[in-house]
Amino acid sequence: MKSWVPIPPRSHFSLHNLPFGVISSNENQQHRLAVAVGDHVLDLDAFTSGGGFRSISSLQEQNLSVFSQPTLNSFAELGRPVHRIVRGYLQDVFKEDTPHPDILKDNVALQNAALKPASEVTLHLPLAIGDYTDFFAGRNHAHNVGTLFRGPANALQPNYNHLPVAYHGRASSVVVSGTPIRRPWGQALPAPGATEPVFRPCARLDIELEMGMFISRPNGLGSPIPVDKADEHIFGYVLMNDWSARDIQQWEYVPLGPFNAKNFGTTISPWVVLADALEPFRTRGLENPVQLQSYLREDRADSVLDIKLEVSLSASQGEETVVIRTSAKNLLWSWPQMIAHHSISGCNLRAGDLLGSGTISGTEPGTQGSLLEQSQGGKTPIQLPGGLERMFLEDGDTVTIRGWAGEIDGELVGFGECSGKIVPPTPM
Amino acid sequence: MKSWVPIPPRSHFSLHNLPFGVISSNENQQHRLAVAVGDHVLDLDAFTSGGGFRSISSLQEQNLSVFSQPTLNSFAELGRPVHRIVRGYLQDVFKEDTPHPDILKDNVALQNAALKPASEVTLHLPLAIGDYTDFFAGRNHAHNVGTLFRGPANALQPNYNHLPVAYHGRASSVVVSGTPIRRPWGQALPAPGATEPVFRPCARLDIELEMGMFISRPNGLGSPIPVDKADEHIFGYVLMNDWSARDIQQWEYVPLGPFNAKNFGTTISPWVVLADALEPFRTRGLENPVQLQSYLREDRADSVLDIKLEVSLSASQGEETVVIRTSAKNLLWSWPQMIAHHSISGCNLRAGDLLGSGTISGTEPGTQGSLLEQSQGGKTPIQLPGGLERMFLEDGDTVTIRGWAGEIDGELVGFGECSGKIVPPTPM
Repeated sequence: MKSWVPIPPRSHFSLHNLPFGVISSNENQQHRLAVAVGDHVLDLDAFTSGGGFRSISSLQEQNLSVFSQPTLNSFAELGRPVHRIVRGYLQDVFKEDTPHPDILKDNVALQNAALKPASEVTLHLPLAIGDYTDFFAGRNHAHNVGTLFRGPANALQPNYNHLPVAYHGRASSVVVSGTPIRRPWGQALPAPGATEPVFRPCARLDIELEMGMFISRPNGLGSPIPVDKADEHIFGYVLMNDWSARDIQQWEYVPLGPFNAKNFGTTISPWVVLADALEPFRTRGLENPVQLQSYLREDRADSVLDIKLEVSLSASQGEETVVIRTSAKNLLWSWPQMIAHHSISGCNLRAGDLLGSGTISGTEPGTQGSLLEQSQGGKTPIQLPGGLERMFLEDGDTVTIRGWAGEIDGELVGFGECSGKIVPPTPM
Repeated sequence: MKSWVPIPPRSHFSLHNLPFGVISSNENQQHRLAVAVGDHVLDLDAFTSGGGFRSISSLQEQNLSVFSQPTLNSFAELGRPVHRIVRGYLQDVFKEDTPHPDILKDNVALQNAALKPASEVTLHLPLAIGDYTDFFAGRNHAHNVGTLFRGPANALQPNYNHLPVAYHGRASSVVVSGTPIRRPWGQALPAPGATEPVFRPCARLDIELEMGMFISRPNGLGSPIPVDKADEHIFGYVLMNDWSARDIQQWEYVPLGPFNAKNFGTTISPWVVLADALEPFRTRGLENPVQLQSYLREDRADSVLDIKLEVSLSASQGEETVVIRTSAKNLLWSWPQMIAHHSISGCNLRAGDLLGSGTISGTEPGTQGSLLEQSQGGKTPIQLPGGLERMFLEDGDTVTIRGWAGEIDGELVGFGECSGKIVPPTPM
């Protein structure tokens, strides 16, 4: 699929992608929907009011109002068949041999109104997040961290292979890529074996490399979503950095789980890659040795996504260095299994709810999705250029996650960047 | 304070209270704000448009629009000084010797438009809840349950007295009193010592007697709320039943805390009792044996609330029996301490966020806020009339929490009811 819009060969935003986001610009501060294509964005509010959707079949007139909303929630709630129609139509509009040249290709007025260089817009949180749930589906990570926290004998808890372990996260502090992350204060034990905590800025500030998934169609309270229908409740995916204060976490997390160690910020990438765009990249996840309960058994085996993931770190003034390389296929549980488990209690999921995969780690050095793992619990430093070393993050460090599916130039389906810089703690 | 509106002597909604809620009615399905007074409600949308606030001083004209919103969030966000002005004005309006008789007492037209028997309106969830956080501040409960789950030696974890332990709960499934609660399905171990889970409807469905608190004024991400400023961020309080699936919880909760065991439903009472209405009932909480970190140290010692709490249970067709009697003062941590701890990481709290106290238990039999405690872990049945017994809840059971502060007839500050009936699990 060639486009009449110039798309750089290694662009994450090929015609095979067309991710959705929320933009504003200097001349129009209103938040509104957009689609990314190469180094441009299509302002869907301007596109809609300029008649851009007049040649779309099977999209009801009243549904066009979703494109002038300040978040993607209403569009998400329309459901996957509608997302498919809209993305397919926009692919048609952008194709070199478009069947609708009058819509945009030959319509300079609408191009001027709606097609903008990406550098001219500001990206915002794409959805209003009702609830944020973080899973723990990266079994290699669970094993690595369990070993550090509880020793190898108790690394994986007895329930781990039987159900997708998860906890409720904090929705208010989910922020879009580029938002500074302030080092949190909190209680921690000053040394191994200490019994009295101290109050200080976090001394073990870490990242967690995750994928995030947004819910589209809601289920009612008391109505579980069957695992083989769960795909229809997926809107799309983002990259996610679930920043973690390891020293605060270790002191606070028993018996009710992580709280302040996680709620100071979670960064997501701004463009939501639709579920359909990632269909070609389905693959098998990690093998599960146990017989699953019926509500978790899937008809198909290729239900995780092969997305290449990279994490880079740069100290202030320093150059960017890739410190982690792995794949999003390193999950024991698929997204449909997470949805089925989350709702088996009757819990209602709403359009805009965010589910995190949990940290994604491979098994080899350099493939582990947190500094805690990479530094073996803060014992082996990670080497950076210029003789710099890191066990955990320092003030001024910037962490950037990148992720993409596909190998072929001009056909990548990527996420762009999920980035955040650590700023010093609030003075106390 | 006598009122010209008839207020029954034991009414929870005396002039000393005036709690805020959200109503609709047969003739007007729109959700709108209201205040409860005796057996009546004042429709604040009708009251505002009928000029009811024309004699209020120091309330800006533009703020009147909050009363026609479908939730209390915008009113909450105006902050406590405004809540104080509005509640004080409405007390003046309702007083026997009102200084504003023209507003309502002598204004039959506005009475007809805005003052309705409570029996004629439907009550709704009072706020749109952004995030719901559940604390674990009831130390007697923590001790009792810790003993059942981990034995007396490990009942309270080492962190318990040092920080208000909490976890992020599920906001989507918080429902208003009267909403049926469907018994959840889930995984559980079939017997003590079993290693393979089974999939079944919850067999140990329980209640948790809690207080809930709503946030008014938000803080920014990265800006902790000092403990001695935290009172100004409190909107008001509700009764809360944090329904719990004990068998699901015991299997799932390690290492990340409760998830499906809690997210199928949390019931709150519909009327929000403003923080100011409960000021006269401040008292001391449980004694903390440790030296607190600076950010948790309060100037005043009387920072929990003396609210009498009762839980009744009725089997279907059966009569209602009070099975628990205790007081909301049985907390180790005050609400300002919970807010200070929650935000010390920089976590942002928003208007409409809900914080739960955790289960409130006394030390004597019959004062413990869960059936798990009352039945000593499902070993000693609770006796009901007609020879019925309960370890945990059965389908058709109705649980009702009632709570009030004060002793004097005509001066009670109460919450009304927080009630829910268990309905059978979804067929699978």
